[in-house]
Amino acid sequence: MVSLSSIRQAAERISPYTHQTPIITNSYINSLCEAEVFFKCENFQKTGSFKARGASNSILKLSQQEKENGVATHSSGNHGQAMAWAAREAGVKAWVVMPSNAPAVKKAAVKAYGAEVIECEPTLEAREYHLKQIQEKTGAIFIPPYNAENTVEGQATCAVEIHSELHALDYILAPVGGGGLLSGSALATHFLSPKTKVIGCEPELVNDAWQSFKTGVWTASTNAPTLADGLKTSLGDITFKYIQEYVSDILLCSETEMVEAMRLIWERMKIIVEPSSAVVLACILKNKEIFKNQRTAVILSGGNVDLGKLPF
Amino acid sequence: MVSLSSIRQAAERISPYTHQTPIITNSYINSLCEAEVFFKCENFQKTGSFKARGASNSILKLSQQEKENGVATHSSGNHGQAMAWAAREAGVKAWVVMPSNAPAVKKAAVKAYGAEVIECEPTLEAREYHLKQIQEKTGAIFIPPYNAENTVEGQATCAVEIHSELHALDYILAPVGGGGLLSGSALATHFLSPKTKVIGCEPELVNDAWQSFKTGVWTASTNAPTLADGLKTSLGDITFKYIQEYVSDILLCSETEMVEAMRLIWERMKIIVEPSSAVVLACILKNKEIFKNQRTAVILSGGNVDLGKLPF
Repeated sequence: MVSLSSIRQAAERISPYTHQTPIITNSYINSLCEAEVFFKCENFQKTGSFKARGASNSILKLSQQEKENGVATHSSGNHGQAMAWAAREAGVKAWVVMPSNAPAVKKAAVKAYGAEVIECEPTLEAREYHLKQIQEKTGAIFIPPYNAENTVEGQATCAVEIHSELHALDYILAPVGGGGLLSGSALATHFLSPKTKVIGCEPELVNDAWQSFKTGVWTASTNAPTLADGLKTSLGDITFKYIQEYVSDILLCSETEMVEAMRLIWERMKIIVEPSSAVVLACILKNKEIFKNQRTAVILSGGNVDLGKLPF
Repeated sequence: MVSLSSIRQAAERISPYTHQTPIITNSYINSLCEAEVFFKCENFQKTGSFKARGASNSILKLSQQEKENGVATHSSGNHGQAMAWAAREAGVKAWVVMPSNAPAVKKAAVKAYGAEVIECEPTLEAREYHLKQIQEKTGAIFIPPYNAENTVEGQATCAVEIHSELHALDYILAPVGGGGLLSGSALATHFLSPKTKVIGCEPELVNDAWQSFKTGVWTASTNAPTLADGLKTSLGDITFKYIQEYVSDILLCSETEMVEAMRLIWERMKIIVEPSSAVVLACILKNKEIFKNQRTAVILSGGNVDLGKLPF
């Protein structure tokens, strides 16, 4: 189980490898939101997303024997890069199963971190089949992207940094895909700043976490073509449990609202965030009455975008 | 004349209004350059460029009577925004003459800072004519974009911040258009770290500063269609004098090299810089033998780009 002590140990464990990312503000966006908004910049994290936290925590906790066998995962996005990077830092061999239609730039990034890329058909079945094959052949340990205590514990270190810098926060907002970052943020906040409410933000097109949260019944993602490709996944049983217990609400935004918020961040803050990161600002702008005059920290989860395929 | 004491006074004068911008590093880019490169992020400066420094210094030095008359300039770019912003901060009325073909987003930005925009034909003659008209009608003081001691003094405060954070630098690189930033950087460095060499960086397409520097004879810009629209202007007599005296060299890069460097900064550092800012990294990558194992600070001059018209 994830506890305050296990989160603090994770923060110490990964700190030689990860960045304590900056928290920045923007006066124009504050005036637009009529609120105090603090942006936690995980787009500046190693490998360009918060995923570096969970992946490094998971790998650093392996036994020496497990490390010698290597690690494996399947991913079309940020987790694959993060695991490949974390494995290299720990001197561990890594295999990443990637769908054949994953962008060439992402495959290149995983390879550049020294991992072996195994291409497969772009279906979940094919990805899981090839992962199984590699594990059987090599004995590699599967490093899950979100649905595991070690992952949640690692992602929780982001909110630990927020609470060490900012006090008396009214809200923390995090995007929700598989729920690792949201679970970790909610757990850390429960322990460190119990009056702060933690809210998840999700695109309307893939509102499965919202549906699961509102009905209490786990609902699968439709995998609809949202621009927030990091948020397509369904919750896991572990993350759903934490979200039900520690999260206050989940808010939704449209694709247009997400792209407008992304543009606002790029133009006004001069930083690059991916669409999945922009949902948090979109949800504030759509629900101004909730956040008016409140101190709100939002997690900009990542900055990995294909510059050749921008939505504006 | 600009002196160490006048630069220090300028730094104090503008500090309630401007940001001390962060200096960031990137391990991938360091390994690519085989050098230690420190990026001074003026893209995060107020109004999105270093121009806020010179404009606020110039306006804050006006007498009360001059302030009451207001200020005016002509600009299609960052200086117009910076002057409009600095005037608003000082409670001074502002007029900005802008060519009719300036991007709508830039006109909107100047208006949003509360300045009056006067549109004119896109020629230097028309711009100067309309500026003169406004000055005659209102008594407004002209705030020049680069060729003035007050402007150079303001831009010099950027290198003051660099030297306060970084010691034993081998090089400082700054883009060169009209030469205000390069002059200011060279002057501040001459006073504060005389062993550090200051180098200007310019696109080959508009290599007038390079030609002026190499021949000793002032050469006009051809105004060729470089993507670095901030670097099209010719040097002024004041900036040329400082550059001849205090700058070590001027390096050139192609448009392709500039766009590649810009992409590298966006993709790896997750920050938005305009093409004019990218010339500094392009010139390092083109001249690796000069910068190998050297401690080099580069000034990312601004981050104002039209997201609808990106070069990649």
